[in-house]
Amino acid sequence: MTTDQLYGQMTAKKSCLCVGLDTDLEKVPSFFLKEKDPLFAFNKEIIEATAQYAVCYKPNTAFYECYGADGFRQLEMTVNYIKEKYPEIMVIADAKRGDIGNTAARYAKAFFENMPCDAVTLAPYMGRDSIDPFLQYDGKWAIILGLTSNKSSADFEMPGDLYKKVISTASGWGNEEKIMFVAGATHPEMFAGIRAICPDHFLLVPGVGAQGGTVKDVAAGRNAKCGLIINSSRGIIYASKENDFAEAAARAASDLALQTAELV
Amino acid sequence: MTTDQLYGQMTAKKSCLCVGLDTDLEKVPSFFLKEKDPLFAFNKEIIEATAQYAVCYKPNTAFYECYGADGFRQLEMTVNYIKEKYPEIMVIADAKRGDIGNTAARYAKAFFENMPCDAVTLAPYMGRDSIDPFLQYDGKWAIILGLTSNKSSADFEMPGDLYKKVISTASGWGNEEKIMFVAGATHPEMFAGIRAICPDHFLLVPGVGAQGGTVKDVAAGRNAKCGLIINSSRGIIYASKENDFAEAAARAASDLALQTAELV
Repeated sequence: MTTDQLYGQMTAKKSCLCVGLDTDLEKVPSFFLKEKDPLFAFNKEIIEATAQYAVCYKPNTAFYECYGADGFRQLEMTVNYIKEKYPEIMVIADAKRGDIGNTAARYAKAFFENMPCDAVTLAPYMGRDSIDPFLQYDGKWAIILGLTSNKSSADFEMPGDLYKKVISTASGWGNEEKIMFVAGATHPEMFAGIRAICPDHFLLVPGVGAQGGTVKDVAAGRNAKCGLIINSSRGIIYASKENDFAEAAARAASDLALQTAELV
Repeated sequence: MTTDQLYGQMTAKKSCLCVGLDTDLEKVPSFFLKEKDPLFAFNKEIIEATAQYAVCYKPNTAFYECYGADGFRQLEMTVNYIKEKYPEIMVIADAKRGDIGNTAARYAKAFFENMPCDAVTLAPYMGRDSIDPFLQYDGKWAIILGLTSNKSSADFEMPGDLYKKVISTASGWGNEEKIMFVAGATHPEMFAGIRAICPDHFLLVPGVGAQGGTVKDVAAGRNAKCGLIINSSRGIIYASKENDFAEAAARAASDLALQTAELV
């Protein structure tokens, strides 16, 4: 997926919303537990309810791996379903992988060849050779952790502005057609500084909703074209745990997409 | 698995060898490709050939995930096989995960509940809340990346001694019964400095063999009790690609174990 294709979606839907598929069997309506593939069955309903508002879906791999190979299979089913039915919507594997070169190449194969993901989130700690294998695929994206939304980003990311060094260094590894950065909505005061370092790259912004960030907070991260993908997971997919879960998810996605419209 | 149990293995086997199961279908003897579960079938032979020399096995999750759910299932089969037949041997999931707290808890469930791994490698970038969920399990270990063996450790880990800050900070999150650190054999000059910061924690040392490190190089990382787990992957499991692959792996493991004996 190219930048132009992603912007095409944003313009058509007047939205830069990403729906996070952090699917948890303890939180989905209980009737899904009778399904053979409950993670996938739930995801399918959520996707159908929200596809008109979302420009990206972001399944978080942990929520599938914790159910073992069976969960991993339902992750594959989910990604395949989206890319078959809605090939225009970006799929981000929120995997936060990072390993030495020959291993990183295996993760790239896992997400870009075995599954048709468009992008994968990556941890920068081990440096360039842990990212490079992901940059060898045309139309695929490496989304590198910059400043994350969690409280403990204060442990290593913030002291000495490590996150700025990561974004500054890594933005030289690939242009804005290949690399994006994660910048959490819980640090709105940092967005101007991040934009000064990487004016053109997309920022994937988690932390809106359950983690306390708002769309208004992240407006400072906008660039000339938009340059933002704003994620909400729990606030959308668990908007209701009752029979109306799909309608509630659609409403929550529609509301949030409308808030993002002015950024697009 | 407790520290005492791990030292019991080391003393009994006169070895601190970890065998890395980075199983790659392009590198295993071709007759395994006819097997229904070729990754597992190969691993089983390697385990049987090397169990008398190894105190740990370390499957790297990337090498299984790149074959999708089927690969993930064979990872589970491998871990289950080791812990059923050789419960005294430590199994380290080399997964290098790292995410916010509620997600990290899912990864902990994946490796410590769904699979009976004893330890998992973790990336420290996102800070304490990405590690804490793994510390809630008795007899399980978080192995946090300190200074890795790859060339690009020079990008972020080494400048400003970030790896020292990580080790120093994270060693306060849990004692040596809960936390280990990764310290690559390709940086032998750094071991004394690392030991000054964390005298008691185990160091998991990759980079011996294919990556250029030697057992002699890492002796400076020894502490009063030993405190080292020395990993070799490709040098052992691909010692031969012919019919004698198992004997060759046994010889390579025996040779390397013998080199580590003086550290134990």
